[in-house]
Amino acid sequence: MVRAAVMGGAGYVGGELIRLLLGHPEAEIVAVTSASLAGQRVETAHPNLRGLTELRFSPTDQLGDPEVLLLAVPHREAMVRVPDLLGQAKHIIDLSGDFRLRDAATFARYYGVPHAAPGLLGSFVTGLPERHRAELHSADLISVPGCMATAGILALAPLVPLLRGSVAIDARCGSSGSGATAGPANLHAERSGAMRVFAPTRHRHEAEIAQATGLTVQMSATGVEAVRGVQLLCRAELVPGAGEREVRTAYRQAYRAEPFVRVVATRRGTHRYPEPKILAGSNFCDVGFALEPGTSQIVVIAALDNLVKGGAGNAVQCLNVRLGWPEWFGLEFPGLHPN
Amino acid sequence: MVRAAVMGGAGYVGGELIRLLLGHPEAEIVAVTSASLAGQRVETAHPNLRGLTELRFSPTDQLGDPEVLLLAVPHREAMVRVPDLLGQAKHIIDLSGDFRLRDAATFARYYGVPHAAPGLLGSFVTGLPERHRAELHSADLISVPGCMATAGILALAPLVPLLRGSVAIDARCGSSGSGATAGPANLHAERSGAMRVFAPTRHRHEAEIAQATGLTVQMSATGVEAVRGVQLLCRAELVPGAGEREVRTAYRQAYRAEPFVRVVATRRGTHRYPEPKILAGSNFCDVGFALEPGTSQIVVIAALDNLVKGGAGNAVQCLNVRLGWPEWFGLEFPGLHPN
Amino acid sequence: MVRAAVMGGAGYVGGELIRLLLGHPEAEIVAVTSASLAGQRVETAHPNLRGLTELRFSPTDQLGDPEVLLLAVPHREAMVRVPDLLGQAKHIIDLSGDFRLRDAATFARYYGVPHAAPGLLGSFVTGLPERHRAELHSADLISVPGCMATAGILALAPLVPLLRGSVAIDARCGSSGSGATAGPANLHAERSGAMRVFAPTRHRHEAEIAQATGLTVQMSATGVEAVRGVQLLCRAELVPGAGEREVRTAYRQAYRAEPFVRVVATRRGTHRYPEPKILAGSNFCDVGFALEPGTSQIVVIAALDNLVKGGAGNAVQCLNVRLGWPEWFGLEFPGLHPN
Amino acid sequence: MVRAAVMGGAGYVGGELIRLLLGHPEAEIVAVTSASLAGQRVETAHPNLRGLTELRFSPTDQLGDPEVLLLAVPHREAMVRVPDLLGQAKHIIDLSGDFRLRDAATFARYYGVPHAAPGLLGSFVTGLPERHRAELHSADLISVPGCMATAGILALAPLVPLLRGSVAIDARCGSSGSGATAGPANLHAERSGAMRVFAPTRHRHEAEIAQATGLTVQMSATGVEAVRGVQLLCRAELVPGAGEREVRTAYRQAYRAEPFVRVVATRRGTHRYPEPKILAGSNFCDVGFALEPGTSQIVVIAALDNLVKGGAGNAVQCLNVRLGWPEWFGLEFPGLHPN
Repeated sequence: MVRAAVMGGAGYVGGELIRLLLGHPEAEIVAVTSASLAGQRVETAHPNLRGLTELRFSPTDQLGDPEVLLLAVPHREAMVRVPDLLGQAKHIIDLSGDFRLRDAATFARYYGVPHAAPGLLGSFVTGLPERHRAELHSADLISVPGCMATAGILALAPLVPLLRGSVAIDARCGSSGSGATAGPANLHAERSGAMRVFAPTRHRHEAEIAQATGLTVQMSATGVEAVRGVQLLCRAELVPGAGEREVRTAYRQAYRAEPFVRVVATRRGTHRYPEPKILAGSNFCDVGFALEPGTSQIVVIAALDNLVKGGAGNAVQCLNVRLGWPEWFGLEFPGLHPN
Repeated sequence: MVRAAVMGGAGYVGGELIRLLLGHPEAEIVAVTSASLAGQRVETAHPNLRGLTELRFSPTDQLGDPEVLLLAVPHREAMVRVPDLLGQAKHIIDLSGDFRLRDAATFARYYGVPHAAPGLLGSFVTGLPERHRAELHSADLISVPGCMATAGILALAPLVPLLRGSVAIDARCGSSGSGATAGPANLHAERSGAMRVFAPTRHRHEAEIAQATGLTVQMSATGVEAVRGVQLLCRAELVPGAGEREVRTAYRQAYRAEPFVRVVATRRGTHRYPEPKILAGSNFCDVGFALEPGTSQIVVIAALDNLVKGGAGNAVQCLNVRLGWPEWFGLEFPGLHPN
Repeated sequence: MVRAAVMGGAGYVGGELIRLLLGHPEAEIVAVTSASLAGQRVETAHPNLRGLTELRFSPTDQLGDPEVLLLAVPHREAMVRVPDLLGQAKHIIDLSGDFRLRDAATFARYYGVPHAAPGLLGSFVTGLPERHRAELHSADLISVPGCMATAGILALAPLVPLLRGSVAIDARCGSSGSGATAGPANLHAERSGAMRVFAPTRHRHEAEIAQATGLTVQMSATGVEAVRGVQLLCRAELVPGAGEREVRTAYRQAYRAEPFVRVVATRRGTHRYPEPKILAGSNFCDVGFALEPGTSQIVVIAALDNLVKGGAGNAVQCLNVRLGWPEWFGLEFPGLHPN
Repeated sequence: MVRAAVMGGAGYVGGELIRLLLGHPEAEIVAVTSASLAGQRVETAHPNLRGLTELRFSPTDQLGDPEVLLLAVPHREAMVRVPDLLGQAKHIIDLSGDFRLRDAATFARYYGVPHAAPGLLGSFVTGLPERHRAELHSADLISVPGCMATAGILALAPLVPLLRGSVAIDARCGSSGSGATAGPANLHAERSGAMRVFAPTRHRHEAEIAQATGLTVQMSATGVEAVRGVQLLCRAELVPGAGEREVRTAYRQAYRAEPFVRVVATRRGTHRYPEPKILAGSNFCDVGFALEPGTSQIVVIAALDNLVKGGAGNAVQCLNVRLGWPEWFGLEFPGLHPN
């Protein structure tokens, strides 16, 4: 059993890391830290785990000598902590936004602060097995992409040779993406049933998609009624000669052997395109598309659970890759229908 | 036009008071106070009022010399403020819980603190026109009942002569009842789709129902997915000889001429019993019932919008009674279907 | 009082027409037809109207000799009926899609059937007062635009001189838009919390927006969790020299005097852009925008209640224009917050 | 691997049986029948299973020679089919309501039709391991209780010696309980956010709770906003001398060793009582309670996922008991938070 610690375990991503690791056949949780809940049982913050573990939150500096350290601390906090953590665990997997962008200037533009450890930006491998599996086999610093970035990269990257011009992305997301801290904008009475355009432009994850695909990307993000779930609708121009067949081929080549990406564009059934609500709890990213008749435009749709394939599940998949385990260890749950 | 001021206008009940008074043909809003938003436009807190008013929040002590003062400040704050406000407006209508219970000991038991102005408890008339219309014609201190209390009193009071023993009430309510202040329990990700038993026993409104009806009442309260809306399901024992006919007669006698209470117990249609979702924004309280076959039990159901008939609308109706205007002034909106 | 009849009054748009006309100071409902519910009380289908009317549904051919006939029958049915109805009422306002597109070939392409009365296509005036007020003053055949079309036209039309290239629209909508007839895709367990891309391309309303603005439009439509509400996010290119000031000016000139269009793009508050949830029941269309930094792109956002400004309310506003009444007659309700 | 067939696999309970059996280490699905979808892929009806199975629906009479036959056909159909199915599989597990009540007259009273196979009523063992584990070890005809019945029995049965008088139950449930067939009452626009009292009295599951516990039970059932989830709030009278300690002891004795029942009544955290939303997909039934101060009343609360512990999961647990496997085989998923 590999010894794993979760730093920042009281939040939603932290809770999912704990859930997935508790069900993992090769991992053992040695510590879950929380500055605010130290001493309390993990189930106080994560009631779904009642009866499944006796774990208690520990103070942030009690990591239990882990081999793997998963960081689920807030953006801007990770980059301050990482330099001191480098020697404390063989593998560090960061789930914050701090090491996703390789360029310090881009980071500053999207996050509004200078990077605290710019020298480390190049040391992290992007934690997306579908794109970086080979590097992940030996990576010891892994940065898991943002939830919308993961959806966007998986939807667009295989199509890059077929696209031209810029890509417009409309992202919709559930409320868990804004975390477990209460504020006016995620008060239930305000957020329930809303279509809240919280980032009409310049959402941070747009920069990750651009970095990963080389495409020019403009993304808008809207909070809609859901707790979990991200869906991206991307509109782009196909190069001459590219059509349904080329798109299907590109996806097939990219994802035929992938355990967690499914191409969904069907003619029957109620849910014919990627639908986040049936993905809650699962590590799938579903990708689909439709061609705009009479034009060369394509609409690409992607969906995932922001806390799983868009966060904790992806991190566990990276860990599986790094340690040579089957990639689906701990990630077997397929999602629910109806849900 | 009567000059009206709202103290505590940044909250949800305050916002509804402003909405209703803006649409009232005989009232004029002279001030809306907010300690935290003084100087800002009312629409900052209440975006539905954009373009309808130029009002700005004023500091708490700038009341604009009103004839009517509506208090939408939190529980425990009203009882501290009221003694000083007595001379500042001819009519005071308090929407907090502080002057609903006439007995200081009961207040202390349900609110957890001693009453700050026990000498005034007897001076307030209960602001429920269906039960206290005659007194309201001349009342200058009016205390509007709690949202669940209003539903419970309107459902049960006409049946008191037909009931025996205690009444068990199961109340379900939307999230707006807990106000506009964010906290862990009304975070969207926690509250959405929940069935949160926040008061398995001893909800404060139970004491109001008991006081108003003389019945022994045990109430449980659960937050369910809704922003607005309260529904009570009350189970009680009928006296021998009482049946459907007697119940219908009692309701008919009580509510035949009431503009805002409807008896709903139909054989056709999708919504056969009181359903809060079609009452959002309206001042109706719908009341219905079913008899338990083979027993002497009755199930009584009541529904209303907690912010309107359970708060601001009821206050405006009281104002209409007090000033001799038609009771439906400002309260014409019938609710939406579907919604 | 003007005599008004509603044909097809059992559906959701029909129900809203009844609600609005019941509250209208100058209109009187003389008949509401329903093939399936003839003889039953209107409140059987529209429980929010309980106690407000004694109306019963009449058979489809009993129109009660109206001056105004409002058609809320399904698409494809209206075009079959209209020729026979021409003499039966002085004013006909059609809320179906059948007379919105002026070109029969475009109709056939988007609706999948040839038009049954192509000779009448040119006789209808578009029922959008903000764009066709002058014609509406004397129009006797009025065709109310689609819900998303109304939002799109109001958002884009004032900006046409400032835009170039095509416009990509991402539309999100509530479930009431698919009507009161149950089917697999609007079953609650499937639709609740969904982000269902039901029209990745070629939504019918796209053709209306193109027709009204002259722009090339590509629209995708997704059903999200809401009963009422449509929100459009439109992405377009500004011409050189156009910026925030020009956009604000264009909107101001177009909508300064409009009672039902508000420009919403604020720096304070939780809802800074058009949000449909606070518009339920109201006749507002809120329009806002953001500029994409470092590019010439603009993101335009529009929101409305699909059954009101996107249907019944807009029809009543047209009626008010046609008959010379204040445009807000029957349309005073401002919407609720929170909701 | 044991050969299992699911009859009626296109519905929601059927879909969950397939999901759970696909993840079961000892079971193999040999057939899933559906009269309406025969020939189509299972994922057409259950999109969460995309990529997990190549199974197609077979006609109802093609069962694939199973050892275990799970019946997920509608009420009233199971009792007609079962006599012919007796020889076709060694073990039959019925998930319909047809064999839950042992008394034909009670069945007729609650289901409105005479029983079609009354002679078999006594042959089925109740499929609730917590109460009938010993019998299930050798049972070949198993009838899985209703979703609310399971919650009610697990909540009340351990307390029977501590209770007197009748029990009032208020049940709230999600929309998946009414199945995958669309109808007016589960249309999204009607059902979303509703509090629909669909059975103020005489819900069928009340009879099962009475049968299992010997208590007199009156139950009301309300549909609230949720897809999955049942919550019961039960109010009863304790015998003299019974209090918190006796209740905790009774639960501890009953459930200490149970893998799927948790006692939830905590002082910390947001979800202090059983909350169905964190149980979706899991096989847990959470049970909690509160004492009514100053009285001898107790409020007992229970929650579960109606399709899992209230249906398919419970059936799999029974199968595990019957075949001597660990009870949690196939049932490891703990539920999600937030959700």
